[in-house]
Amino acid sequence: MLMADARESTANEHDDLADPYRPRRERALAAALHAGFAGLIATPGPDLAYLTGYTPTTASERFTALLLTPDIEPTLVVPTLERPDAERVGAAPRYADWRDETDPYEVVAALLGRTGRYAVSDAAWALHLLALQDTIPTVGYTAMTVALPMLRAVKDAAERSRLAAAGAAADAVYERIVETTFAGSRERDVAAALAAMLREHGHEQVDFTIVASGPHSANPHHDPGDRIIETGDTVVLDFGGLRDGYGSDTTRTVHVGEPAAQVREVHELVRTAQQAAFDAVAPGVPGAEVDAVAREVITSAGYGEHFIHRTGHGIGLTTHEPPYLVAGERQALAPGMCFSLEPGVYLPGRFGVRIEDIVLVTDTGAVRLNNTPHHLRIVR
Amino acid sequence: MLMADARESTANEHDDLADPYRPRRERALAAALHAGFAGLIATPGPDLAYLTGYTPTTASERFTALLLTPDIEPTLVVPTLERPDAERVGAAPRYADWRDETDPYEVVAALLGRTGRYAVSDAAWALHLLALQDTIPTVGYTAMTVALPMLRAVKDAAERSRLAAAGAAADAVYERIVETTFAGSRERDVAAALAAMLREHGHEQVDFTIVASGPHSANPHHDPGDRIIETGDTVVLDFGGLRDGYGSDTTRTVHVGEPAAQVREVHELVRTAQQAAFDAVAPGVPGAEVDAVAREVITSAGYGEHFIHRTGHGIGLTTHEPPYLVAGERQALAPGMCFSLEPGVYLPGRFGVRIEDIVLVTDTGAVRLNNTPHHLRIVR
Repeated sequence: MLMADARESTANEHDDLADPYRPRRERALAAALHAGFAGLIATPGPDLAYLTGYTPTTASERFTALLLTPDIEPTLVVPTLERPDAERVGAAPRYADWRDETDPYEVVAALLGRTGRYAVSDAAWALHLLALQDTIPTVGYTAMTVALPMLRAVKDAAERSRLAAAGAAADAVYERIVETTFAGSRERDVAAALAAMLREHGHEQVDFTIVASGPHSANPHHDPGDRIIETGDTVVLDFGGLRDGYGSDTTRTVHVGEPAAQVREVHELVRTAQQAAFDAVAPGVPGAEVDAVAREVITSAGYGEHFIHRTGHGIGLTTHEPPYLVAGERQALAPGMCFSLEPGVYLPGRFGVRIEDIVLVTDTGAVRLNNTPHHLRIVR
Repeated sequence: MLMADARESTANEHDDLADPYRPRRERALAAALHAGFAGLIATPGPDLAYLTGYTPTTASERFTALLLTPDIEPTLVVPTLERPDAERVGAAPRYADWRDETDPYEVVAALLGRTGRYAVSDAAWALHLLALQDTIPTVGYTAMTVALPMLRAVKDAAERSRLAAAGAAADAVYERIVETTFAGSRERDVAAALAAMLREHGHEQVDFTIVASGPHSANPHHDPGDRIIETGDTVVLDFGGLRDGYGSDTTRTVHVGEPAAQVREVHELVRTAQQAAFDAVAPGVPGAEVDAVAREVITSAGYGEHFIHRTGHGIGLTTHEPPYLVAGERQALAPGMCFSLEPGVYLPGRFGVRIEDIVLVTDTGAVRLNNTPHHLRIVR
């Protein structure tokens, strides 16, 4: 399905594979102007990577940003000592570097206009934004996902291939981890094994390895600790990271030995809700509707108050980004969008269940990028 | 020296070792009020870790912050699904959790006053800050390192011990890497070996492993690549990360085989500048003065234009934080501050040299937390 999509991509898309950044910058600026903004300010992280291919080692107190406005060539404001690395990847047609003893915000001020609003990366540091607000008090700023929520949401052919490969790697890790012995292991040891396996399956970055056992499984973002997993435990496994720059994120709930009837019942309920959400995905459907469909399945069964998070989030250069599948999200889904579907039910002090796949919106519905079975796997 | 410091610490400091967070919060709020602020907003990262001991898996689009004001008990605003983890570490005396379908900024608005300025963590996301500015337009915000630059700068006994241990681990890694064979290795392989060694020596996080060989050594923040190191190369090794929550960061410049006369000359110059900076460190001395001392040594020798970065930066829960040793920094150094001293000279297209130690300010001067020899080490 994915390969078919790739083959159907236009010649134009193939050119973009070679150097996708210039057309992305042009589309981003056009979208910003169309939405009434004066331009974009993309700081280190996914926006900058998307628009330039440049990923500094860390976002830091040293200001770095790509400026896109109609008045100047795309310009990377960059610390002098990092300019060589930026130039090596051809980050931008133009550079404005600044040395440690100088003021980078004055460099920005000399390049931007004095009116209008700029869309600025979500994760831009407050340190930098406040300094820009002080230096150029007449312009306004809007967070990128508020201004242009769909900037990176529709994935091109190359991005879809990478997301599919990341999903397949996560699937392979799941099939390996369920063959290991859970009973008697500490949560943190299973988590470490997951991290090592993700790296072995090509991940250059591990973002999370949730191993939530027994009563901990009722805590959606449980930080794995010293608890020793026992026979009779429900165990939520939620892991992912970046492979070749693109994200993986999958969750399966397993059981050590034979489960109690209610565990089976809740697991089946969550599986049904996840399938219903998947079936609801199609171009034109608002994100809120997919959330509502999953929630309705769980609420009808009397567990609504125990589904305490949204149904999903986008994935791409990060493991959490728009589109969000959450109440109030009116943005319509479109072909090429990638996101998680991950309903869950959490019974405090007892157990929890979550099932999560990454899915890709197609012209008519969706395909899963995670394809391990959904049934409650019994582990030893 | 460090151990002596630790033994001399007061009974009060020993109490802080058990639960340092409450007294830190009290001191931070008192300092903020004294400086004319209405309170503090600490978001995930070093400020939150310092004030609560709580480190969420990632900073994210979900708003999390500790609010410190004179009017309320210290309150952690936290996503509902992460509240259990926060509670488990006793992050705050009070929690205000919010669910995905609700507005966290309204939760903050209900807790903060409507006037004054709040100090907000440097790395707070623009997404969150802009939303707070929209929700509570009558209050102002100042970045933490502008408002309270010295909030985390003076390290207590426990922090000093951890920084010393991180430094000793980095030293051990250096002594191992110089015994390996450089000639014929790719930069990225040496970098991977450094990362593996840092982990073996107790680091839970590797932040950077710069291996800059031959002409790349003239690029201070070179990202190690496929270049094969050759006999005759100068190689800058700059590596560090977090061990037991606290940072390491050291740089040595080595040479593969016998160096040319100018390499020896520049290395000796940088060594002299680093020693001069070290000798200049003492309580009461402004950060700018230490930078000026190192710079003067290099400028006098005719290489001033090739020292293209500041002389150093603080280190603690992060590997880059105040105090900065840079022109214009008037903040006086104080006993217990920890920072890098890392002058360098970079000759574009040819070679570069940097020498970096972490140092700790004592009552009378400074001690080094990195103690490998400074001479130009010849490697094979």
